[in-house]
Amino acid sequence: MNKERLMKYAELLVRAGGNVQKGQPVVISCSVDDAYFGRMVQGCAYDVGASEVIMEWSDGPTTRAKYLHGSDELFDTFPQWTVDKLKYNNDRGAVYLRVDSSDPDLLAGVDPSRIKRATKASMAATREHSALLMSNARRWSICAVPSPAWAKKVFPDLPEAEAIDRLWGHILKGARADGADPIADWETHKQNFVKRVDYLNKKAFKSLRITTGIGTDITLGLVKNHIWVGGGDMGKDGVPFFPNLPTEEIFTMPDRNQADGRVVASMPLSYQGRLIEGFEMTFKNGRVESYSASKNQEALASIIEMDEGARRLGEVALVANSSPIGQMKTLFYNTLFDENASAHLALGKAYPNNMAGGADMTVEERVAAGCNDSLLHVDFMFGTQDMQVVGISEDGSETVFLQDGEFID
Amino acid sequence: MNKERLMKYAELLVRAGGNVQKGQPVVISCSVDDAYFGRMVQGCAYDVGASEVIMEWSDGPTTRAKYLHGSDELFDTFPQWTVDKLKYNNDRGAVYLRVDSSDPDLLAGVDPSRIKRATKASMAATREHSALLMSNARRWSICAVPSPAWAKKVFPDLPEAEAIDRLWGHILKGARADGADPIADWETHKQNFVKRVDYLNKKAFKSLRITTGIGTDITLGLVKNHIWVGGGDMGKDGVPFFPNLPTEEIFTMPDRNQADGRVVASMPLSYQGRLIEGFEMTFKNGRVESYSASKNQEALASIIEMDEGARRLGEVALVANSSPIGQMKTLFYNTLFDENASAHLALGKAYPNNMAGGADMTVEERVAAGCNDSLLHVDFMFGTQDMQVVGISEDGSETVFLQDGEFID
Repeated sequence: MNKERLMKYAELLVRAGGNVQKGQPVVISCSVDDAYFGRMVQGCAYDVGASEVIMEWSDGPTTRAKYLHGSDELFDTFPQWTVDKLKYNNDRGAVYLRVDSSDPDLLAGVDPSRIKRATKASMAATREHSALLMSNARRWSICAVPSPAWAKKVFPDLPEAEAIDRLWGHILKGARADGADPIADWETHKQNFVKRVDYLNKKAFKSLRITTGIGTDITLGLVKNHIWVGGGDMGKDGVPFFPNLPTEEIFTMPDRNQADGRVVASMPLSYQGRLIEGFEMTFKNGRVESYSASKNQEALASIIEMDEGARRLGEVALVANSSPIGQMKTLFYNTLFDENASAHLALGKAYPNNMAGGADMTVEERVAAGCNDSLLHVDFMFGTQDMQVVGISEDGSETVFLQDGEFID
Repeated sequence: MNKERLMKYAELLVRAGGNVQKGQPVVISCSVDDAYFGRMVQGCAYDVGASEVIMEWSDGPTTRAKYLHGSDELFDTFPQWTVDKLKYNNDRGAVYLRVDSSDPDLLAGVDPSRIKRATKASMAATREHSALLMSNARRWSICAVPSPAWAKKVFPDLPEAEAIDRLWGHILKGARADGADPIADWETHKQNFVKRVDYLNKKAFKSLRITTGIGTDITLGLVKNHIWVGGGDMGKDGVPFFPNLPTEEIFTMPDRNQADGRVVASMPLSYQGRLIEGFEMTFKNGRVESYSASKNQEALASIIEMDEGARRLGEVALVANSSPIGQMKTLFYNTLFDENASAHLALGKAYPNNMAGGADMTVEERVAAGCNDSLLHVDFMFGTQDMQVVGISEDGSETVFLQDGEFID
């Protein structure tokens, strides 16, 4: 991919994605193999006046080696200094940017209990930090770049260099970063969301009934005063940002006690290096009553059984089939892209901003109002070409607002 | 460089250098550009039973960008979590390995006051950690690999790929890692030091008078009960290790109050990205009375004026001209190699192990015994082909034990 194009993409992440302001520290999470791009992002961050850019380097093989060869107690441990580091940067008002290029098979063959324990230890220790991100008290944004392993996973029949090139093309198109002025394109993109979000927020449906041809038939109660969000988000300090590049979804908060019916996944879920395939769940009163998967069911179990909140829903998100990613008909093995191809639900923690005043409530107050809480937040796709969504109002009247995978305007 | 050769070099660092024992955590400092080699070292460390391998990634361009564009207060700040991280790993008994490939010109053009302040803040905050390393309470080892910038600095007339290849050859030869069994070669190398070190320790000279044809003429008092060390070191726990790959020096502790005369550097000193050239110092009662440099004198000043101990000597090291590095007649712009080409002195902190019982004394007790203390420890070369060293005994008798750059056996 040519350098000028990459620079525009890096700028999009810094200026539109994290919307870095003069004087803010920026933390960039980046794989050592993606240093060439991480340094571009870093340069853009200093260009807009970042006070400091901190690179948080990661390395897939290092992570894998630790899981395979590290001593067992490591996976129940999360050093306090790591928590203190997050607090140090949060107190200084850091913006978090992530360059993702994860190998979907990174943790294949690793002892699942090690992954589960490590995830639990990390999530418990960084709960405060996650809450800051999810309540938009700190801005953050994620974009993706190809790695050889990821590109070969998505395009197994292509030679490596060609696969990388093809994935770059898909990423930039999917992230609407392939035009002459991506930042302007994103401004337009954002405006297109406004009408749809306003419509749904005025409707203030009591519940949604969602059906697909592959077996999903579920009714989701929405929390009172729920807010539909889409096309970017607003920082607590009033500075807008885009947490995800790309973003094609509009989403809101289901009531943690009001999901009834069956959801059949329409795409595999790549979770911590394992691919969960052919899975479905049945809900009763908001809780997963039963579940199954044709492949990697134990990975699905490690999600659902993480804690009580992981058995309940934190997000319902709708995506039009006509989105650039939806049109690519490509499984990216990466939630950032796959969640924007199709409607999805999230098990686990809800975004407080999806409820009026949610960000200012305590966790207990939120839970009492139906807002789900958990150590994790995991999206999975269920949308299909023939999906239908019906909004049910307080008075019982029904409005079909999404038919055959497209919004009815 | 072929992979098998590199694997032997990585093994040398882990098994002979740090001498990693089963169940120990290992911290590997490595540039993101050297990940291919860092991962080999990591693999060897797990092979010998490391409990965890922690990669401390660094990136030259990131460091440079921070100095150029970071906000000014960063350079007086050293976050507490960084100190806590060191303590966390030290308490677990970590071994520290470093893969160095620094660009000698990394910080060229950077505001020297920023470098000086950052160095001071870092050294003050990590004083406890440095003391653990310098007293061998924690084992550590450094090796080098070429970077494009470093290779081009050493061999400016060669194309980049050739310069890298040539530097690899020099590094492996200099580190005695070019044979079929480098670990066995290092065992032999170590035995060769024993005779020389034993001889000097039995002599227990009161002082040394060192002269060279380019103007050095200095008398250095040695501390009482000084110990000559060379060809590896002994951990406090009785496990031997080699802090530096290569190592060709034997060294001991000058008395911090007893250096009188003039020292003329025989090689430039590459310090924090700046090359100090044509420099000399005059000592009186152990203290630098005056100094000058033909280039980058302000960098020399930033060393000498760091603190009182930086004006005094912490180490005198002798190297035979016939060492592999001495024979290469190459300026490496890297202390790890250049210090093994030639005799040198260090400004700043002394190694407590160079005095009988030193490692068990308090800093105050050591200083009272003539052992220098400082935030820093910086080596500079003064050895020449025609260097002569005379040992002066308590009774005033003189023994020439190094003549024309070679030890007299």
